Amino acid sequence: MSEMVLVTFDWVPEIPRGYVRDLRVRWALEEANLPYRIETVPFKSRNAEHFSSQPFGQVPWLRDGEISLFESGAIMLHVAERSEILMPQHAEERAGVINWLFAALNSVEMATLPYSIFKFNGDEEQTAGRQALDAFLQSRLQHMEAYLSRRTWLVDTFSIADILMADVLRLVARFDGLAEYPLCRAYVERATTRPAFAKVHADQLAHFAAAD
Amino acid sequence: MSEMVLVTFDWVPEIPRGYVRDLRVRWALEEANLPYRIETVPFKSRNAEHFSSQPFGQVPWLRDGEISLFESGAIMLHVAERSEILMPQHAEERAGVINWLFAALNSVEMATLPYSIFKFNGDEEQTAGRQALDAFLQSRLQHMEAYLSRRTWLVDTFSIADILMADVLRLVARFDGLAEYPLCRAYVERATTRPAFAKVHADQLAHFAAAD
Repeated sequence: MSEMVLVTFDWVPEIPRGYVRDLRVRWALEEANLPYRIETVPFKSRNAEHFSSQPFGQVPWLRDGEISLFESGAIMLHVAERSEILMPQHAEERAGVINWLFAALNSVEMATLPYSIFKFNGDEEQTAGRQALDAFLQSRLQHMEAYLSRRTWLVDTFSIADILMADVLRLVARFDGLAEYPLCRAYVERATTRPAFAKVHADQLAHFAAAD
Repeated sequence: MSEMVLVTFDWVPEIPRGYVRDLRVRWALEEANLPYRIETVPFKSRNAEHFSSQPFGQVPWLRDGEISLFESGAIMLHVAERSEILMPQHAEERAGVINWLFAALNSVEMATLPYSIFKFNGDEEQTAGRQALDAFLQSRLQHMEAYLSRRTWLVDTFSIADILMADVLRLVARFDGLAEYPLCRAYVERATTRPAFAKVHADQLAHFAAAD
């Protein structure tokens, strides 16, 4: 089996460390026991080669032979094609995992991202749009809370969908945004106390610290 | 080939008509020449059965035999498994389509959604968070503009990724948010002048009008 190459930044400032999205990919690769190595691109000067691999100038991307994947959702599906560990094989359960993979990135992260940006900017102004965005987030979290009342993981066993959902909710928890959602908090806790998460979180911190 | 069932609301208010997300699915099914029929659930009272099929209380979802899909990205992948028309078969191009499918729903829609919500609410207050969200959107649109300077569609031929990206950008165009992005506007125009779009747009308007 060929070794995959995960590309991330050579360095990032303190604040995003532990949250850079290569973590999602490292996590999936560790859970799936797939071999990979890390390569880097400059954080401070993003050149045309970077944009040819990642059209938005971000990280990560994953190379596997001739295949190059630059969206974390696409990478998760690829990892699930390479290993059965993170994706059930039965058609109905597989459909469930794919539903929840997209739910993490669209239904949920689309609601959590504005919250994080307001918090990062220390912005507490309650304008009409801000209130609508907040109502949208609370609605999503309420539905997640209801869904998680009956489940340990999103679909039966721990999957690629849980990696993305836990990583999305973790950033809300960072700003105490899950205070009223104990089941969401417990879910994030369950996911992030897995040995693979602890390893890749430490790996990412060490990677960026080594560049200081 | 069994007929798929697309579930949407029985009625919605005027404003979202022409933009309800069942349109994305109708569009893909028409482009792929796959048979389907429409079923409805009440817009005004969303019951437990609705939430068991769509955990966020939204529409659409798609049933195909025992499989039920409630995220538009998951539905697109399923349509692409049922028909080769909207997904190239070569591995590298297929990876490209899957990258762009996720890019539409995560990298791009995550930036366009707050913009739409501010506009829907007539909110023009330039708070720090609002400015950061706007800078995020402008950055994404600039990268899309650069990418589209070299292409007719996101990956070679028209695909499921174009359906989602065009539908996402269409809502920005509705509020004149693509004024400075002529290539994005031309892309939306190319996509939405396809006969399949015209048909399903008319179908959705007629569906909701019939319930008034």
